[in-house]
Amino acid sequence: MQNTSETPRLLYDRVASILIGQIEDGTLLVGDRVPSLRKMSGRLNVSISTVMQAYMNLEDRGFIRSRPQSGYYVCQRHERDVSVPQKSKPRGKPRKVQLANTVETIFGYANRPGIVRLGVANPGTELLPVKALTRALRKISAAQLEDAVDYCLPPGEIGLRRQIAFRSADIDTMIDADDIVITNGATEALVVSLQAVAKPGDVVAVESPAYFSVLQTIQTLGMLALEIPTDSESGLCLDSLRDAIDENDVKAVVAVPNFHNPTGALMPDDVKKDLVDLLHERSIPLIEDDVYGDLYFGERRPRTCQAFDSKGLVLTCSSFSKTLAPGYRVGWIIPGRFRSEVMQRKQLLSSGSAGITQLAVAEFLRSGGYDRHLIQLRRRYREQLMRLRESVAEYFPDGTRITRPQGGFVLWIQLPRGVDSIELYENALQHKIGVTPGSLFSTTGKYKNFIRLCAGHPWSDAMEQGVSTLGRLVHELANV
Amino acid sequence: MQNTSETPRLLYDRVASILIGQIEDGTLLVGDRVPSLRKMSGRLNVSISTVMQAYMNLEDRGFIRSRPQSGYYVCQRHERDVSVPQKSKPRGKPRKVQLANTVETIFGYANRPGIVRLGVANPGTELLPVKALTRALRKISAAQLEDAVDYCLPPGEIGLRRQIAFRSADIDTMIDADDIVITNGATEALVVSLQAVAKPGDVVAVESPAYFSVLQTIQTLGMLALEIPTDSESGLCLDSLRDAIDENDVKAVVAVPNFHNPTGALMPDDVKKDLVDLLHERSIPLIEDDVYGDLYFGERRPRTCQAFDSKGLVLTCSSFSKTLAPGYRVGWIIPGRFRSEVMQRKQLLSSGSAGITQLAVAEFLRSGGYDRHLIQLRRRYREQLMRLRESVAEYFPDGTRITRPQGGFVLWIQLPRGVDSIELYENALQHKIGVTPGSLFSTTGKYKNFIRLCAGHPWSDAMEQGVSTLGRLVHELANV
Repeated sequence: MQNTSETPRLLYDRVASILIGQIEDGTLLVGDRVPSLRKMSGRLNVSISTVMQAYMNLEDRGFIRSRPQSGYYVCQRHERDVSVPQKSKPRGKPRKVQLANTVETIFGYANRPGIVRLGVANPGTELLPVKALTRALRKISAAQLEDAVDYCLPPGEIGLRRQIAFRSADIDTMIDADDIVITNGATEALVVSLQAVAKPGDVVAVESPAYFSVLQTIQTLGMLALEIPTDSESGLCLDSLRDAIDENDVKAVVAVPNFHNPTGALMPDDVKKDLVDLLHERSIPLIEDDVYGDLYFGERRPRTCQAFDSKGLVLTCSSFSKTLAPGYRVGWIIPGRFRSEVMQRKQLLSSGSAGITQLAVAEFLRSGGYDRHLIQLRRRYREQLMRLRESVAEYFPDGTRITRPQGGFVLWIQLPRGVDSIELYENALQHKIGVTPGSLFSTTGKYKNFIRLCAGHPWSDAMEQGVSTLGRLVHELANV
Repeated sequence: MQNTSETPRLLYDRVASILIGQIEDGTLLVGDRVPSLRKMSGRLNVSISTVMQAYMNLEDRGFIRSRPQSGYYVCQRHERDVSVPQKSKPRGKPRKVQLANTVETIFGYANRPGIVRLGVANPGTELLPVKALTRALRKISAAQLEDAVDYCLPPGEIGLRRQIAFRSADIDTMIDADDIVITNGATEALVVSLQAVAKPGDVVAVESPAYFSVLQTIQTLGMLALEIPTDSESGLCLDSLRDAIDENDVKAVVAVPNFHNPTGALMPDDVKKDLVDLLHERSIPLIEDDVYGDLYFGERRPRTCQAFDSKGLVLTCSSFSKTLAPGYRVGWIIPGRFRSEVMQRKQLLSSGSAGITQLAVAEFLRSGGYDRHLIQLRRRYREQLMRLRESVAEYFPDGTRITRPQGGFVLWIQLPRGVDSIELYENALQHKIGVTPGSLFSTTGKYKNFIRLCAGHPWSDAMEQGVSTLGRLVHELANV
């Protein structure tokens, strides 16, 4: 009989501790094969899925690594010794954003053919269901000739909105198709949401580090960014946010609670609830970017902040760009009480989104292959991210800190003090390697010795070689 | 031998005058068939194409009307007696735009199924090459599987930009593919262009009346609109603009020189040159919306302001939304010297546009059917617009003034003083007829007794009936 008196979490924590004990006392050595799921399940009298959870957790923490068709093996010590970056402490004043043209310059290069694509948070097309999508596109383009060329005005194609609403039920958000407004990807969703809740001159609180597009959008809209301390594992620090709200007239908060870009942080669901409660007290809208939410490595999808929102103050932005077809530009907003403002801004920005790609995605979702695809995709991203993390741990100097994301596909890496990541970026470019310098993720001049690396593309020798070269370049800069 | 000593323009003016003379002295009566092109050509010793130009000009002016396969006939007097609206005289102060939710409410209704679609400036899908486009889409979706789903970052798909550059040579603008940035329709092109040249708080000069989306975008971006007097036939009044620039710190001018929305005005090419010269003197950027430029009824396409710009101060915005596929959302900017600012803003607004629709339009353009399609489309729009104008002239009360556009498909109608077009809009909606009230086209409270009607959809009995009902409603409101 299996042990059922403990919660699943306690159970797999226990399995994990046993295994860590065996690794640390030398029972299991580097390179050893770890007992199979079945064997461990029998030995400890727990279910196979509990052992699987434990192994995945240990893999995330760098103790073991899976090899396809072969099982799990004990990793090199350097793969698990690496610390994560500490909580950020940005200076606490609202600021004008002035990232100048750095972002454009960097992304101009980052997409050049032949470059090792560690810089840009894009999925590799090899991971995407290209053929099935194309079939869906061809089917609807034949079946709905005129719909496919006519305006598809906000809120967007009804069939697609129904599918999104249907899927949202999985994350405990009870919405219907009318609660959704389709946008040109999450990028436009973010712009529309910001315009809907704040105006030029307003203060907007953001995580520090923040996704640079958020900062630049705040700049373009003439708003001010107030950076809030953020933990690289659990996200936005609520105490700091509370203080910031007390001291500043904050008009909106923008956050990426699920697998933050660049830190990969996952805000625990109970903290999400506290965040929403805090913002309810002050009647401050929250714009949450949930674009990585489906890319969890754990046992279940993390919830959105909107799931805890009874007052319509949360605007959830998301898209299919990381999971299905970046080039289709299909995103959406669940705008809560701001539907009318969101509809108006969306209309003004682009008079609706392309109808044909909305119809094609709706057709693909209806056909039912999306969940199966996501299961595979999560496994791929996870494996790619682990490989990247291992390589960085192996090739970068001591003192490097690396985040340990539980989802998504970006790493946030703190280099030894004194390493200038803009210099590293430039040197890497000479070797045709793309990286994103940390200073882009703040308005405060911080994160000069951080970089973001992305694992959206399949792991390859060229990537391993790229990280090795990067490591050498970091060594050189660290020793200057 | 044909008479060749006169310029073509003088020649066809002479032909037109002869015919007007015959109509006015009663030689030709209402309903009479006008001499055929061949007969008139022989009689006056001019080319058939000169006679054709003259007849088209007379048709535009409401003297004669063509009937398919039958020739030209003399029209009712009411079709030619109607005056055009006078030059606008907005009050000359920069203003915050506050159109509230009127636009959204009105367009929410305007697109309802079953409504007589006179309110919205959309093309009827019956006029569009739906099948050929779909073929292009299917072809490229099979041939470029991965390109079709991957990000297509700014400046956008190279094949499409080449085609647009190639076509621009026809309007004397020598540009290449690198001078073009693809956007989500001209709507996004406008937002991007405004963001590229002005910031919150800046004064932007616009035509009065102005396209309401321009006004709302200025509002959303926190800028101020300064309305400039505008002639309903020749567009923006340069003297007034000069004065306005002298008195205000104008940071940009937005204009629709070719077939303005709502007036249909066409700025003569020499005035375009003067406009550009004026703005050169003051180093003020001009954003020109050329979305109706291909829809000319005359003998040749009007030029863009950009054709006269040697300093890169003109940003030309356009799209395929009025000519090919509104739902594909394929527009572009030719940004002059502002390319880098435009690229950055476009990236931030939507990270590139959908790749698949860009590829499909490029394929369609390459295949060569576009010019043939445009010839037909211009004829259809022209006929629809003439029909609409005739009906308004017939059914609306004396004192109604109607513009006489030389291209595009919108009419700007001045109703007798005292008729409130918002009231008319509401009454019309009861009869399921869409109209656009004039007050949306200004920030000044003007144009309360104006409406815009659109002829983008094929003429039908329902439309004729709709205009007749509208006329009755206007009569009622005029007699209160």
